[in-house]
Parts: sequence; C-alpha cells; structure tokens
Amino acid sequence: MNPGLAAVDREAPPGLEAIHAAAARLRDRIHHTPVLGSASIDRDLGARVLFKCENFQRVGAFKARGATNAVFSLDDAEARRGVATHSSGNHGAALALAAAERGIPCWVVVPDNATGVKRDAIARYGAQIVDCAPTMTAREAGLARVVAETGAAVVHPFDDYRVIAGQGTAALEMLDAEPDIDLLLCPVGGGGLISGCAIVAASRTPPVRVVGCEPAGADDARQSFLCGERITLDTPETMADGLRASLGERNFGIIRELVDDIVTVEEAEIVSAMRLIWERMKILIEPSAAVPVAALRKGAVDIRGRTVGVILSGGNMDFDRLPWQSSRQ
Amino acid sequence: MNPGLAAVDREAPPGLEAIHAAAARLRDRIHHTPVLGSASIDRDLGARVLFKCENFQRVGAFKARGATNAVFSLDDAEARRGVATHSSGNHGAALALAAAERGIPCWVVVPDNATGVKRDAIARYGAQIVDCAPTMTAREAGLARVVAETGAAVVHPFDDYRVIAGQGTAALEMLDAEPDIDLLLCPVGGGGLISGCAIVAASRTPPVRVVGCEPAGADDARQSFLCGERITLDTPETMADGLRASLGERNFGIIRELVDDIVTVEEAEIVSAMRLIWERMKILIEPSAAVPVAALRKGAVDIRGRTVGVILSGGNMDFDRLPWQSSRQ
Repeated sequence: MNPGLAAVDREAPPGLEAIHAAAARLRDRIHHTPVLGSASIDRDLGARVLFKCENFQRVGAFKARGATNAVFSLDDAEARRGVATHSSGNHGAALALAAAERGIPCWVVVPDNATGVKRDAIARYGAQIVDCAPTMTAREAGLARVVAETGAAVVHPFDDYRVIAGQGTAALEMLDAEPDIDLLLCPVGGGGLISGCAIVAASRTPPVRVVGCEPAGADDARQSFLCGERITLDTPETMADGLRASLGERNFGIIRELVDDIVTVEEAEIVSAMRLIWERMKILIEPSAAVPVAALRKGAVDIRGRTVGVILSGGNMDFDRLPWQSSRQ
Repeated sequence: MNPGLAAVDREAPPGLEAIHAAAARLRDRIHHTPVLGSASIDRDLGARVLFKCENFQRVGAFKARGATNAVFSLDDAEARRGVATHSSGNHGAALALAAAERGIPCWVVVPDNATGVKRDAIARYGAQIVDCAPTMTAREAGLARVVAETGAAVVHPFDDYRVIAGQGTAALEMLDAEPDIDLLLCPVGGGGLISGCAIVAASRTPPVRVVGCEPAGADDARQSFLCGERITLDTPETMADGLRASLGERNFGIIRELVDDIVTVEEAEIVSAMRLIWERMKILIEPSAAVPVAALRKGAVDIRGRTVGVILSGGNMDFDRLPWQSSRQ
C-alpha cells in the first residue's frame, strides 16, 4: 500500500508545506471537525470565541491526526514491519486505528495501571497490547523490546515531526474555515498539538498569535518557556490527564520560537470551565480540553478586540466519575 | 412589532403550509440545528441513522420552535398583553425567551418543586415566575388567575396548533437536509413534537414512516394509540422527565391519523442508550432524547433497509446526578 505522498523529513521541523502534505494524507481518513460558537459564551467573555471540536474527531481526540500522518508517511517496506508506541491514553488508540486502516501490525506498550476503558479502545482497533509496570523506564524498556523483536517503527506520541505535522492540520482547517481568528489557544501537554498549530499560525499574514494553556500543577511548559531551558516535572498533578506529559525536545524547539505566551489555570477553574462547555454547548469535552476555556474565563489572556480560536482537544473520559462530583469549586 | 406573517389558524390542525409559515417565522430567531451521524452506531445497528441535534437548539431543546412560533403568530394587540403558561421545564424557558425577543411580558406558573436550574433558566430570560403547589389543579388555577389579571394569551406546551406547527419545523429541516430518510423516530410526551413532525412526514412522496417512542412507565400514548381513545396516566414513572405528560387532545387527533406505530422502552435501556450517545458522539442528550435510540437498539422498530432519522429532543439535565450513577444497567 502506497501512502501516495513523499514521507515527511523526520529530522527537520515541518514547514507549512509538510502540514499541507499531512492534510492531503489525512483527507478521507479522519474527520474534518466542525467549528462551533456560543452566543452566550461570547457575551460572558466579551469577545468572539470559536471552538474547533476535536472531541468529535476519530478516537475522540486530535491524536488521530498525528498518528495517521505518521503511519501513512511510512514507505511500504517500513510499514510492513508495523508500528509501535507506549501510551496509556489516546495516542495508543489513535495509532492502533491508523495501523488498522493501513493494514499493518501495531504494538502498544501499556502500563498496567491504565484504565480498562483506554485499554479496551486500543484493543478494539486490533493493536497488540504489551503490559508493563507503570513507570517511564518500564514503558521505554518495553517498547525497546518490542522494536528489537519486530523491527516496528516507533511513533512517539508528540516528540516526532510527522506527529507534529499531523496535529498542525487542526489549525490549518480552523484558520481556513475562520480567517478572522487572530489568537489561537491550545492546551499543552507534550506539546504536539501546539507546536504543529504554531507553525500554521506563524505562516499567516499577519501571523496569528498563539498562547499555550496548562494546568498549574503540570506547568513544565510555562517554566521551560520562561527560563529558556526544557524542564521536566517528576510528579505533575492535574485531573487533565492528557496534559501530564512533559514537553518533548522537538516540541520545545518549535514552541520557544513560535509561541507567544504560556499561561496556567487551577484545577477548580478547569472543572468549572468544563462544566460551562457541557451546559452551554451540550458537547462533551474532557478536562484537558477545558484548560484554554478556563484561561479565557480567568482573564489570563488578553482577548480585547480579538477573534479567538480554541482547540477543544478531546472528549474521552470516565463518565462514571465527573470532576465536579469529587471536587469543591 | 409585527410578526410579519398571518397567524396560524388556531382551531384547525396545521397543514404543511402552516409549518412552512412557521419555518419562515423562526428563521433567524432559532438555530437551524445540525444533523449528525456516527459510523460506529450505524455499524452496531446495521442501518444508516441520522440524528437531528435539537439538544443544540436555543434553550437546549426543540421547545424553542413551538413557543417562538406561537409568540410570533400573535397579532400586535394580543402580543402587547403578553403570554402565559404553566411549566416545570423547557417550555417555560422557551416561552420566556420568545417573549423577550418580541419584547412582550411573559408569566410562567411554576410548581414549587421545580428544580432551581429550570427556575433559573425561566427567570434568566426575564419571565415573571408565579409559584404554585405541585399539582396539575394548582398549576391550572394559577394560570387562570394570571390570565384573568393580565389578559395574557395562554401558550400550552403541546396542546396548541401553533406549537405543533412550530415543532414540525424540526422534521422539515431534517427531511430537506436528508431526503433519503424514510423512517422518522420521535420521543412522545404530550405529543407536540411527534404530531408536528408527522404532518411533515405524511406530506412527502412517498410518505415517511413515523414511529413514536415512549418510556414503558409513561406509555399513555401507546395505550391511547392501541385502544383508539385518549388515556391519561395519573402517576407516570420515568427518568425521562420531558415525557411524563399525557397526550394532548389535538396531539392525539393527529397521531391517531398519521403516526405508524408507538413503541416503548425500559428505564435501563434509556440509561444505556443515553450513555452510548455521550460516549460515541460526544454530545450531551437528556434521558428523553435517548428514548428513540433505546428503541432502535432493542430492535423495537424494523429498520432493515431504511435510512432512519432520530430527533434528539434536548440536552437539559442536572449534571450533578447522572442516571448511570444511581441505577443498575
């Protein structure tokens, strides 16, 4: 099976052209998600705010973009040997789906404390699950073993230029659909989404301002951004499970150059923002997706006179346990 | 302020023309809601199923259609005296919104056991709340008093031809957008939605089949449909609070003539269907909206070879208490 387009240069940061190539690769393979607004939220915030609904994306999160781009960037010889990653969340399911669509094997190393729901999603798409202890060392050792045995290509959840280019297609779609947007807000975990989106935003005339939004309990990106060196946190603490990862090296390189600011929000602000989106827009977003909304509501970003784009990153969560049922606001 | 169109004949069932007139009246006043699908739900059910997202409608439910049509059907002299209704739910908020948009007064008689959330929604749109005891007699007496004092026009939640014509615009939009639909499923409470939609469905060539879906614990419509006489239940029991009302007289007249079947589902089936829509589609629907989905899943409706339209009636509920947290599936 031929991916139909030249592979992305894996060792150079993607330019706008690589993101257009990713968009062509993704066409018909993932959803072109809608952009929605809410008159009542606009009124509350005093600005026009548009939401890119990646919670409606395949596998329920933007992660389908990067994983699909990586899998369909492989040449046939590489692809035949399959792909592998370690993941406790959406990237594992996204890679499994992309591999299934290309008809190649996929291995996902999963820490044995991952929830049943996430494990089931990975298995449903036909990937082979390899259990490991719930530490980063064990995850990396497990992955190295899989690669040694199978020759599979590793697709990192964020520190990978093919993945970054894929995630950037979310901003490409959004800014093409809504050219008035002049400020773009993304949540920041490992930095895959924001780094891809920042490349697109910087290519506009005039450039679209990009602000990253992060839980205060996992603020490695803000710290790194301020001191100019990549800082990793040992024990991030936030309910926004998609944002616990520390910034990748490639991601930090792009963020440092192209992102305008990184702001943080508290846990109670995340809960309240998530509930606002549920109640007013009747769409389901996970805590990670609520982080930029929380930043807007607390006034952490200057939005006067701006048209604001927010990427709602995903909608996967355990509906048996809602955050407002276990926390005080 | 002139509603711009002739008033609907209040004493004759609306024909397709009255529903087109309602659609013209509603244009720019309410949302043209999207129609969404889910490949995985199609796969599970073995048919193409399309969902009309009235959970995204203003006030969070299709009720905005009927109330807005009624308010903008009044002539100026009537309108000046305002509108009144009794409601513990979405119709009260919908009428309050429509009255506010026309700039006329609105009174809503609200039983004193109505939830704070619903009371707040009615008040937020500027209606005057008149408290009463939580019985139908007290509600009707309260409304009669308001009308005697103010001369306001009563807008019944469902047993009103202007309201029926307004609700029918949901089917009009859906069938115009998706002309392949040949089977339409609606939840049934008082019968406002299904009677309006059935008028539209019957006007197509060939006619679109219409099936009503009802909780087994509030099956007055099914009983009435089967025995040919309008039956009311004293103590309906269902979590689908939008469907507890008994059929209106005008509604039953239309349903008896134009609806093909009415089927029922159990409470556990409602919970499970609601959760399916949340998880797969990432949109919030209330229990009432899940009733037709539950009917499809249990095989209560023959959908072989059909393209099925489902009206997701609303998305208003108390997010502090989710049904799967208090019931066994």
